Amino acid sequence: MGAPASTNIRGADYPQILADHRVIFKTKAPDAQKVQIDLGKKYDMVKDAEGYWNVTTDSIGEGFHYYSLIIDGVAVADPASQTFYGMGRMASGIEIPFMGDRYYALSNVPHGDIRIKNYYSTVTNSWRQMYIYTPPGYDENQGEKYPVLYILHGGGEDETGWAKQGKANLILDNLIADKKAKPMLIVMPDANIGGGGFNSGGIENGMKMFEKEMKQAIIPFVEKNYRVKTDAASRALAGLSMGGLHTLYTGINNTDMFSYLGVFSSGWILPMMDKTANAQYAFLKENADKINTNLKAFWISEGGPEDIAYKNGQIMLGKLDELKIKHTYYQYPGGHTWPVWRNDLYNFAPLLFK
Amino acid sequence: MGAPASTNIRGADYPQILADHRVIFKTKAPDAQKVQIDLGKKYDMVKDAEGYWNVTTDSIGEGFHYYSLIIDGVAVADPASQTFYGMGRMASGIEIPFMGDRYYALSNVPHGDIRIKNYYSTVTNSWRQMYIYTPPGYDENQGEKYPVLYILHGGGEDETGWAKQGKANLILDNLIADKKAKPMLIVMPDANIGGGGFNSGGIENGMKMFEKEMKQAIIPFVEKNYRVKTDAASRALAGLSMGGLHTLYTGINNTDMFSYLGVFSSGWILPMMDKTANAQYAFLKENADKINTNLKAFWISEGGPEDIAYKNGQIMLGKLDELKIKHTYYQYPGGHTWPVWRNDLYNFAPLLFK
Repeated sequence: MGAPASTNIRGADYPQILADHRVIFKTKAPDAQKVQIDLGKKYDMVKDAEGYWNVTTDSIGEGFHYYSLIIDGVAVADPASQTFYGMGRMASGIEIPFMGDRYYALSNVPHGDIRIKNYYSTVTNSWRQMYIYTPPGYDENQGEKYPVLYILHGGGEDETGWAKQGKANLILDNLIADKKAKPMLIVMPDANIGGGGFNSGGIENGMKMFEKEMKQAIIPFVEKNYRVKTDAASRALAGLSMGGLHTLYTGINNTDMFSYLGVFSSGWILPMMDKTANAQYAFLKENADKINTNLKAFWISEGGPEDIAYKNGQIMLGKLDELKIKHTYYQYPGGHTWPVWRNDLYNFAPLLFK
Repeated sequence: MGAPASTNIRGADYPQILADHRVIFKTKAPDAQKVQIDLGKKYDMVKDAEGYWNVTTDSIGEGFHYYSLIIDGVAVADPASQTFYGMGRMASGIEIPFMGDRYYALSNVPHGDIRIKNYYSTVTNSWRQMYIYTPPGYDENQGEKYPVLYILHGGGEDETGWAKQGKANLILDNLIADKKAKPMLIVMPDANIGGGGFNSGGIENGMKMFEKEMKQAIIPFVEKNYRVKTDAASRALAGLSMGGLHTLYTGINNTDMFSYLGVFSSGWILPMMDKTANAQYAFLKENADKINTNLKAFWISEGGPEDIAYKNGQIMLGKLDELKIKHTYYQYPGGHTWPVWRNDLYNFAPLLFK
């Protein structure tokens, strides 16, 4: 007998998490021929006499994981769980309790707000949305201006990712309460733009468009509407996976605007992005002194060798060494997943705005 | 050939809405035996040679509608659409364009924020969440205090309902821009509490607990953390369906705290709630003068005779006449659905805080 996951919808008894973090799934589908749970690994469920399908998984790592219910071959969200925009659709998520440091727990400390903001972009000529974390005290301390971390989701995700899957607000609430991080705004834009995806040059066009969106739409909107500092020393940019590529592009090209860069589970994808990567390496070579002077932190991380971005990341790290670009490397096990990215934010945020 | 719905996930070509508001659904499920779309009415889909299931529905009314994809008997969210917490789970939604007054459109007017707030309730002894709309200018006009509309979702929904399905922020942005409504905060609490549901006295216990939660947790939290006016003339309470019952209970019992009540698609459910209803009617009778003096508006609405709450609502209206309780009745066709409740808010908000 396990405990219902915190990601279950209200009143749902399953999925249940056992003490050893195996998970029991149970779904009613009397007329289905085959039902599976897909957590990266696929588990076949077994039908009982009452038409419920059951399975107990292997032990699952701490934190947030996407999963799907597969009914007769169709991957859908499990009606028993909350949904999160990921994998390019509304996907089920399951939160496995973390027994270590409770750094992303909802605890009894002052809490900031998450704000949902619509803005009109003159770059895309459309309404877009961003999520913004304002730290505890933002409403009260009217005389104070704050630095800003701009942080980007990955491919198949959107502006809700860092707030919902990432728990960025709780991580910062806790760090700020412990005086480990400065009070800051976190701006979570929609990083899907232009071609998007990795096909036929789409990503390169997408990176150029996102740089424009950041410089002409997002940053001006934030600096007009919130009490924030507007010098480069008070701006950081970070992102995971596809968001890490945006950070490598927009961040490296604009070190006069950002003093801190965080690249989580990312790296130029070779040979698919040879053209862009080579142009960026040439830019790094030509501007090494300026970049090394401007950046107070160039922080690169991977989710261990099991991270799908690990290999490209290692190649990039070698290149940065070769080009004498100062950087820090950090590694946390867990692969290309949100538990790793939460931990990245937890370790990156304390370095900022000192 | 129709247009993809605005509720489709990014890049999804289906569902498509035709000019006459029939909807084309298309889902890949080569191994499924039977696939249906449930929009209240169930539509059988037909499989084509490539394993896609297709159907074109009847013409669907304007605005937001919940729907399910049913795969071999299992009702799930359609992977092609955004999900919304409703029907007690994450459900698919489809938005049918409104050709009339664009009162809930995202238009070029000043926009307020939606804020997501965690708070610790000493009533439930747990962390709970509310959504709060702050109007345009709230951050800038530090000298100004605002009135507050507390507004409640229905059964099987939660604090996200009025923001997501209801577009309460856009309705108010537009009304405020047109000077048809006063700038106000809208507080959208989680109205699920205690027993919940309508079984074995659960709803009565739930109503008592919600009254306590409002008075001891929600209102004090809002009045401590936001620049709001704290007199009864600056507080309104409204709700739909189950939220309308909470409004009838908490609102009528506390007309010294709320000057405006809005009851959308609701009414005491007879004979299921005889005990509570009779107690409330007795309270109304004893306190008719006080209630009539305190309330500046007691606004009751139904979604036409097709609304499942219509019959109980009519009985209640008769009772209110009999007891000489002043009230206003409004009716908008569409049944027990979000297009009706959006329209209710659009018509109720201009009456407030004059």
